[in-house]
Amino acid sequence: MDLGGARGPAVTATWLDLPPGTGFGPANLPYGVFATAGTAPRTGIAIGDRVLDLAAATGDPVHATGSLNAFLARGPAAWRDLRAAVTDWLTDEAHRARVEPALVPRDAVTLHLPVAVADYVDFYSSRHHAENLGRILRPGTEPLAPNWCHLPVGYHGRAGTVRVSGTPVVRPSGQRRDAGGAGPTVGPTRRLDMEAEVGFVVGVPSELGTPVPLGAFADHVFGVCLVDDWSARDLQAWEYVPLGPFLGKSFLTSVSPWVVPLAALEAARVPAPAREVPLLPYLDDGRDPWGLDLTLEVRLNGELVSCPPAAQLYWTPAQQLAHLTVNGAALRTGDLYASGTVSGPRRDQLGSFMELSEGGAVPLRLADGTTRTFLEDGDEVTVGATAPGTDGGRISLGEVTGRVVPAR
Amino acid sequence: MDLGGARGPAVTATWLDLPPGTGFGPANLPYGVFATAGTAPRTGIAIGDRVLDLAAATGDPVHATGSLNAFLARGPAAWRDLRAAVTDWLTDEAHRARVEPALVPRDAVTLHLPVAVADYVDFYSSRHHAENLGRILRPGTEPLAPNWCHLPVGYHGRAGTVRVSGTPVVRPSGQRRDAGGAGPTVGPTRRLDMEAEVGFVVGVPSELGTPVPLGAFADHVFGVCLVDDWSARDLQAWEYVPLGPFLGKSFLTSVSPWVVPLAALEAARVPAPAREVPLLPYLDDGRDPWGLDLTLEVRLNGELVSCPPAAQLYWTPAQQLAHLTVNGAALRTGDLYASGTVSGPRRDQLGSFMELSEGGAVPLRLADGTTRTFLEDGDEVTVGATAPGTDGGRISLGEVTGRVVPAR
Repeated sequence: MDLGGARGPAVTATWLDLPPGTGFGPANLPYGVFATAGTAPRTGIAIGDRVLDLAAATGDPVHATGSLNAFLARGPAAWRDLRAAVTDWLTDEAHRARVEPALVPRDAVTLHLPVAVADYVDFYSSRHHAENLGRILRPGTEPLAPNWCHLPVGYHGRAGTVRVSGTPVVRPSGQRRDAGGAGPTVGPTRRLDMEAEVGFVVGVPSELGTPVPLGAFADHVFGVCLVDDWSARDLQAWEYVPLGPFLGKSFLTSVSPWVVPLAALEAARVPAPAREVPLLPYLDDGRDPWGLDLTLEVRLNGELVSCPPAAQLYWTPAQQLAHLTVNGAALRTGDLYASGTVSGPRRDQLGSFMELSEGGAVPLRLADGTTRTFLEDGDEVTVGATAPGTDGGRISLGEVTGRVVPAR
Repeated sequence: MDLGGARGPAVTATWLDLPPGTGFGPANLPYGVFATAGTAPRTGIAIGDRVLDLAAATGDPVHATGSLNAFLARGPAAWRDLRAAVTDWLTDEAHRARVEPALVPRDAVTLHLPVAVADYVDFYSSRHHAENLGRILRPGTEPLAPNWCHLPVGYHGRAGTVRVSGTPVVRPSGQRRDAGGAGPTVGPTRRLDMEAEVGFVVGVPSELGTPVPLGAFADHVFGVCLVDDWSARDLQAWEYVPLGPFLGKSFLTSVSPWVVPLAALEAARVPAPAREVPLLPYLDDGRDPWGLDLTLEVRLNGELVSCPPAAQLYWTPAQQLAHLTVNGAALRTGDLYASGTVSGPRRDQLGSFMELSEGGAVPLRLADGTTRTFLEDGDEVTVGATAPGTDGGRISLGEVTGRVVPAR
């Protein structure tokens, strides 16, 4: 993962015309799966306002499979080699004649789910979020459970309902118990919410029975995407004792179409927050405690409502992976794990409407004069993010978006 | 699903020599994936002490894919047609010369995971089990949460660690807090347990946003297997608030190698237990409330320790599916959902050692003079089951077994 340092100065010089301020310059090179009209989905790399068709540019059938999985399974050396090659192609004019025909305008492509998701795990790694939800859902008790500072709390979500950005958010129905109501009722959720999260994509599997230690993180994890963990808070509140969230989450989880390789995020590494209790050895990253300095932006119908800071997540990506596997659970190519809602301490840093509206008690006032507690039919939520790039600029993680449509 | 009634009398007459008392007669015909030395895994049907090689007998490449998924995706008409054809082949002497060469001795085959598992959901459908665990884990509170009688509580498990019967159970490590201890420690679980469960295999997918009602159960679900949901109770007790079980379960879930089609279980249908509260419409099976009269048998090192009765499960397979999808969650071919631990009211009907030992407080006395609270290294647990068959005899669901090996 030394690409950034070694190539930092060189990668800004490309023969392509890049849109001003693009977050998709040669220091980024995220992977996705795209198709143009009438063609099959294949792997591409975003560059400026174009997509480099890797199936065409490399002739390698691994890039014509319709997901990144087969390429991710090849492992870090293959990831590094291809990144180095593509960097050369886009920065050395000598490659232009061969490469330019493989560039497709981004506005002419449809983006697909980049990864066939194997297992999906969602963590709960923001202390601010966990405390906020504890206060709202379990008033009168300690907001953090006793385990929270000792391990990254997490659970398995539904891999089969992870979809690409843009998938309509059909308002889910289910059971909820009205405050003061006698028994539960069933119907469309009245508390539809979103959660702004950071996702990590596993490329290299691990063996059943063998934990993946902190130091082996980069041997397994390929890159980072954005996740919107749509949530029905009324369903969740009624169902979640004692086995955790189920239908309140499983109707849809959206991911951004571009997976940013770890190599592009070298300059985004920041120290992890101070630890409040000593960590057990398998989680003790004392020598290299790093998080990622991603600044998320949550927009409701285009209006910026929050900028959650991923740098403040208490548990790091490597700690999440070490914990997920400490019991010997195997990893598969395509496993996706997410940070949990990213929330900072300030009101304009909260990553869910549950928190922005204080559990629905304090409506959010919007620029158009309307207010929101939870999401209404027709609302569109977009989560974007940027991070420091290895060339001194900022790279984009793209965005994950979804519009709420009425219950069926 | 009328095969049983229509063909009941005929199917007992087969030209094969069947072992006396076999649960794998022509009324069963369960599907699995097998290989002989040096050959690729392919689909077979168990008959007596043999396996009918479907790839060879049909020439259909769908049976040479190494999992049942592609066949299951074809749907109920294809399942019915093949079952009718195989029934004919095995009961009409005219087919003998052609079919006999495709029969392989079962003791010469290796059995593989029958289904590539998409999502794995575990329910909590035994009232006796839920009450027992509530009493043990949350003493002093109501054993059942308020939601329990209104909906089948469930959660997502780890699909990637679902393995076939016989997979060694590596004792998992993780965090647990000792009673009276200051903070958590990490190490091999001291409370390794199993859970005897019934699993349901989905063949036909459903569309995102569209619930699967009670009446559409047989349009999607292909059949039934046995599940052993290995559990580390100390890890689980420490981690599970507020997001539910995670590492306490995710190290291994074992399934039986034979999937018994619903058509073989027509005679095993029994009325569901009386409902204690009125059910919401999507769960109200008042006109056809059926469960499955499977008698499970739990053996520890060969000694029968419990016979959990699946007929007493409060929530039925169709209710579990209707609930799982009421929020619009999509089904995929290969989805597996399990009942949760099957426990009856009697001590010899409990489906976990957590219950058999009353939370570790009352050791189980074994025939060899030793005692057990939880599982020890070297212990082998086997869960088998039988059910009434459509020919008036009993059919076998085979068994799921695992031996505990020391932590790595």
